[in-house]
Parts: sequence; C-alpha cells; structure tokens
Amino acid sequence: MAVGSGELGELFPVSGFRIGVGSAGIKRPGRLDLVVMEIAPGSSVAAVFTRNAFCAAPVQLARQHLAGSEPRYLLINTGNANAGTGAPGLQNAVHCCEQLAALAGVDATQVLPFSTGVIGEPLPVDKIVNALPEVLADKREDNWRRAAEGIMTTDTRPKATSRRLELGGTTVTITGISKGAGMIKPNMATMLGYIATDAAVTTEVLQQMVRRAADCSFNRITIDGDTSTNDACVLVATGHAPHDRIDSERHPLYAPLYEAVEAVFIELAQAIIRDGEGATKFVSVAVTGGREERECVQVGYAVAESPLVKTALFASDPNWGRILAAIGRAGVESLDVNAVDVSINGVLIAERGGRSPGYTEEQGAAAMAPEEITIAIDLGRGDAAATIWTTDLSHDYVTINAEYRT
Amino acid sequence: MAVGSGELGELFPVSGFRIGVGSAGIKRPGRLDLVVMEIAPGSSVAAVFTRNAFCAAPVQLARQHLAGSEPRYLLINTGNANAGTGAPGLQNAVHCCEQLAALAGVDATQVLPFSTGVIGEPLPVDKIVNALPEVLADKREDNWRRAAEGIMTTDTRPKATSRRLELGGTTVTITGISKGAGMIKPNMATMLGYIATDAAVTTEVLQQMVRRAADCSFNRITIDGDTSTNDACVLVATGHAPHDRIDSERHPLYAPLYEAVEAVFIELAQAIIRDGEGATKFVSVAVTGGREERECVQVGYAVAESPLVKTALFASDPNWGRILAAIGRAGVESLDVNAVDVSINGVLIAERGGRSPGYTEEQGAAAMAPEEITIAIDLGRGDAAATIWTTDLSHDYVTINAEYRT
Repeated sequence: MAVGSGELGELFPVSGFRIGVGSAGIKRPGRLDLVVMEIAPGSSVAAVFTRNAFCAAPVQLARQHLAGSEPRYLLINTGNANAGTGAPGLQNAVHCCEQLAALAGVDATQVLPFSTGVIGEPLPVDKIVNALPEVLADKREDNWRRAAEGIMTTDTRPKATSRRLELGGTTVTITGISKGAGMIKPNMATMLGYIATDAAVTTEVLQQMVRRAADCSFNRITIDGDTSTNDACVLVATGHAPHDRIDSERHPLYAPLYEAVEAVFIELAQAIIRDGEGATKFVSVAVTGGREERECVQVGYAVAESPLVKTALFASDPNWGRILAAIGRAGVESLDVNAVDVSINGVLIAERGGRSPGYTEEQGAAAMAPEEITIAIDLGRGDAAATIWTTDLSHDYVTINAEYRT
Repeated sequence: MAVGSGELGELFPVSGFRIGVGSAGIKRPGRLDLVVMEIAPGSSVAAVFTRNAFCAAPVQLARQHLAGSEPRYLLINTGNANAGTGAPGLQNAVHCCEQLAALAGVDATQVLPFSTGVIGEPLPVDKIVNALPEVLADKREDNWRRAAEGIMTTDTRPKATSRRLELGGTTVTITGISKGAGMIKPNMATMLGYIATDAAVTTEVLQQMVRRAADCSFNRITIDGDTSTNDACVLVATGHAPHDRIDSERHPLYAPLYEAVEAVFIELAQAIIRDGEGATKFVSVAVTGGREERECVQVGYAVAESPLVKTALFASDPNWGRILAAIGRAGVESLDVNAVDVSINGVLIAERGGRSPGYTEEQGAAAMAPEEITIAIDLGRGDAAATIWTTDLSHDYVTINAEYRT
C-alpha cells in the first residue's frame, strides 16, 4: 500500500518556529487533527496555493491574509476541507482565525488557515475552537513528527524531512512536512506542505524560492491527475540564524540555501507519491531531448496519468506500446515518432519509435520487477528535460476511492 | 461488465456493400479476426483517423490510399495493431493490400488496411494472406452481424446498428458497426467504425459528413483518456438508391440524411462506452451554460476522466465535491464557481458552487443507483453545450488492463 520503508530520519527543530498538535475530534475522537504553527516576529513567510477555480474558503482567506499582513500563526485542520461551502464556509474560516488570534494576542489577519479532508461538509467550528487552548499549550520546537501525523488524512504514514547546512559561517536548519495521497496533481502547490528554516531571507526572495522549488517538486507529481481544491505550500524563514540576510537571487548565500530547500521540497513531494493511494510502485518518468521544458512536462504527465500505463505498471508488464501511445497523444507539435527512445530501469525497450532490436520480454520483465521504476523517454529533438513522479493504478486505488466517504 | 442488454436489432443490408468474414488464427485459432468489405464501383468513401502522433502503419497507408485513389476494399484484422512496428510494419501492410488486390483484380492502392490489437508485435502476414481466399468467398450483403463480431478485441459484445429513412422518394439504408472497449479517447475518429449507406453523396460532402458526425459522437466519448494509435472511422455511400445525388450541404436531402447518419454514429459510439472495460455505469456528462462549446467539452472531459469521479460512480456515491473539484481544474478561463449548478439524474446536488440547500444524501444515493447516470453541469455563463459519454472506473478495469497481454 506504500512504496519504501517510509522511515523518518531525525527532524531538527527550527529556531523561532513552534508547533502545537492536538485532537479536536473532527472526524474521529482521539485522532490528531489540529495543528498550530507559531512563527516568531520578524520572520519571512511565502506560500503557493492551488490553481483550482473551486478553491476552498481557507485558501481564499490565507491568500488574502498573506498579502495584507505579517503572518504569525498557521492553523491547520484535517477531516474537513471547508471547500464547496460558499459564504458560510468563509465565515467559519474567519471565525477560527479570530478565535486563535484572541487567544494568542495577535490580529486575525495574522493567522493563515488551512483545511483538508472531505469536501462540501460544514466545518465543525466549535470542535476546533474548543481544542485551541490545548493545542496552543502544546507548542514546542521539537514537535515536527507529531505535526506530520496531525495533518494526515488518507495518508498511511507521516511525511517529513530535515537537513542542516553550513551557511555564511553558521549552521542553518530546514525542516518540513507534507501530506497527501489522493486528488494529487498539484498546480503551483501540493496538498499541504510546511517547510521552515531559521535562515534569514527577505519575503520577496522567499516567495521566489517557494515558487521555484514547488515548480520542480510538488508541481511535478501526479497520482490521479486530480488537482485538489485545498493545495497549499508554505515556506517560513525565521531569520534566527546569524548570517547575512539573503535579499536577492544574486546574494552569495542564495544558491546553497536554495539547493537545500529544493532537496527538501523534492523529498517531501516524493514522499506523497510513495504513499499514493494504492501505490505499489514509485515511478519516475524522466523525459529528455525535448525542445523545451514545457513539452517534456506534457509528455511526462501524459505517460504518468495514462490509466493503461499505470495498470501495466501495477502488473509489472513492460508494455512499451502503451507508453508510446501515451507519448503520441501528449500533443507535442510535429513530434517525430521515429526519433523516440524509451528505456525502463536502464533497459532500452523501444528505439526510434519501434521495439528495440536487442530487447527481449525477459529483460523487460526483469526491469519492471522492482518497486522503484524509471521510465526514461528521449524525444530526440532538443536539450530540455523534466521528470514527473507518479504511482501505478492498483485494485487498492479503486477500493480506497470507491469506499472513502460513503 | 457491460451496461444494458447490448441486444442488436435487425441489420439491413446496404446495396453495393458486401462483407466477407473469416478466421486467420492471428491470436487464437478459430476466432473471427479477418474482415473484407467490398465497395461497389462509383461509391463515395470518406474517413477520419487518429490524431495520435504514433499512428499505426495501416493508418498511414489507409490515409495515403484514400487520398490517391478510389477505394474498392477495406481489409481489417484484429489481434495485432501493426503499430510501433516501424518500416517493416509499413511493408507488411503494403503486402497485405497487394495480395488482396491481386485476388480481387484491383490496384493495391484501392485497398484501405486497418489493424487493431496488440501494439508492437510484427503483423503475421502469412496467416492473413492465407485466409484471404476464404474471406473473399464469404462476401455477401447480409453479413453485418458477423463483421461486427469479426472486428472485436477486448469487446464483450458486437456493436452494430441500422436504420432506414425515406429520402427523395426512395428508401435509403444506413448500417454500421464499431468496436472498442479500452484505450478510448478518440480524436477525430474511434477505435474502428464502419458505416455504409446506399444513399448517393459526393465524396466531398461525405467527407464533411463523416467529420461532423464523428465530432459529436466518437469524438465525445472517453473510457480512459487514452487515444489509440489505430482509430479509424469510415463512411461509405454506394449511391445505389435512386435519388438525386447530394452534392452540397444546401441540397434539400442533405439534412435528413445527415440527421440519420449522426444518429447511427452516436449509437455506435455509445455502444463502445456501454461495453467499456469494466464498465458498470453508462455516464453522460451534459455540460450547458458555457460561453463556447470548447469549454463545455473541456469541463466534460475533466469530469469524465477524473479517476476520483469515476471511482465514486463505481461506488454509486454522489460525491459532488469531486465533481466540483474536477470542474475547477478543467482550465476554464475566469470561471465563477458561484454560478455552477450540478444535478445527477435530475436531483440538484450542488447549487451556485455549494451543496444545494434542499439536497439530502438519500436523494443522492437514489439518483446514483441506476446503471445509466446523467451528470448535468450548468456553468451559468453562456448558451453553449456539449455532452461527453463515459464509464465508471471499477476493479474489473484494473484487472482487465493489468492482465491483458501479460
């Protein structure tokens, strides 16, 4: 039901970033379903949100609060997405922000709300408000692991990663968590991702950084092609590390910090795929040889979202014909099929648009056997590249999604 | 495994159009897998083909022959798609056309070849050539039913329809067959469709007619979003009916003939969906209130191809949140979600972007129970409309596609 061990390494605390976790009993009593993240004054906060036109009330409000004030709290509930809930849904989100703000002594616009779970049910505001004092009392810097558990819905395991790097003569920490297992084709964001660092970065640079990192991580994964109404990804920089503040992309500390941030984003995004609903394979569709990145992404998604390719992956069947057919319908302008090569885990199965002469079914079966599969596609028409990560399509995917919510 | 009875009505012969059916033993001995259709001299022939860049060798050749000569024979084999087979595949297709042409006393360019089945295996030319004399000897006008069986692959039942109409003082017949159950998202054509009429129509008008009818039938269905490499749809008019030849869209007989042709196309396209791999539901996604037809088609496909919507349909779960989420990510410019209504089989479940106030889960469950489901979506921003037909996503879909070919 999930690929790989999912073992979490050590999660280093981030100075200036405290987390409280608790249970509001939104869907089930006793389940961790409410998380508050406290951001020290003077931090920079940046975020990207879903592009789904049906975006949820909390997404609308978080966008608005982020644009207008200095955020001090992130308020996250699971079990209810507060999406498709109209004007009352927006009022409910506002009310939760106000209650947290009153308890914490900040302005309501300094709270960014996030919800995930069932679409279209009224948010149980009272349960959330009643649990806030307990959650606030729980705040501490070494609470990342429980936070990762606290934002899970159909996830089978928490997703978190952490790393430290030397930056400007000091040690900087980046720690992040994510959640998501279905309705996954983020567009400028993931289901939910929260990443904090004690590095010092201006808000403008941080915003550029979150976009750039999301574009090559959360925006390169797909489980079912369904973009959520609630996707959001937040990057916080508390500035507690005593190095020069990074105020531009040309700052000498920008590149090493960005590289580490991107690695964290990619690891969190891949963790969502490894825990994809019903996943038995972790699949990288690595497209090279495109004229531009956009067409590599197009081909990657066409292959990654093809139900025929995905069921063949589930069956460990090296059905290269289905891969070629998906490439062919990806909509790439004047694609020369006779220049396309396809390898699976290093075995060249299709060459110049047809079966590779040296290829045997036995090789293909061996290449398809592992849990981790790389489908490498060379379009043979340029130097651009892009990789999309996805899962197979299994019976468990159907079971999970036919039974959830009924 | 299929929706509805699938009972075929009477299939009227079309004067000037004879069909031979036989078994070449391509995949299994004894299975009907080879069909030859003989077109009387002086007939008009028009066709549309897949837009997949990886189109099969027979598609390339059929396109070329159709453009350059007066077709007299259609040669169709199942069990092997002759796709992804490179230059040898093209030679094999040419060779089959030459052999049929020699036996029939026509030019090889007057034969249009069609193949369907496994991608990437060499076409067993000898088996096909050896069976040709038997198939030619079998030619007769009342052979439509066996032809419908002869072009099946993963289909569970033959697909055919027939109708007669009074036209210009005489009776005209239209009869057609189709096949397809997977890799179904035709683009300007279906998997395979053959429709013949004894009406008299010029080639130019017939070509316009096949495009127009395919656009609102075969190009409005999707099972898995995967466009085949071999899609083709052929419309033949033998002209044996003694009415005025239809030589323009303004001809008084054009409209009544077109209407009947379109009805045949829609019935054949819907038959493919009813027999969709693993289908337990026949689903019409009827989108209205769009600014233009294109955006209605976009929304229709986004909903029809959403794995989350499809698994909810399989579970008979009125999960309108998933429908709204799919509409929201369809990419419609500046969509106002607060103007969108959604009904299922006449029950208004979402109104102005949220749950309909009068709606109860019991109503939703009752609306989702039947085999035939209409999801009506009103975008509330214009007068354009389009309907997409699709299936649910069931365990059997996964089983069929994980086991096929392995």
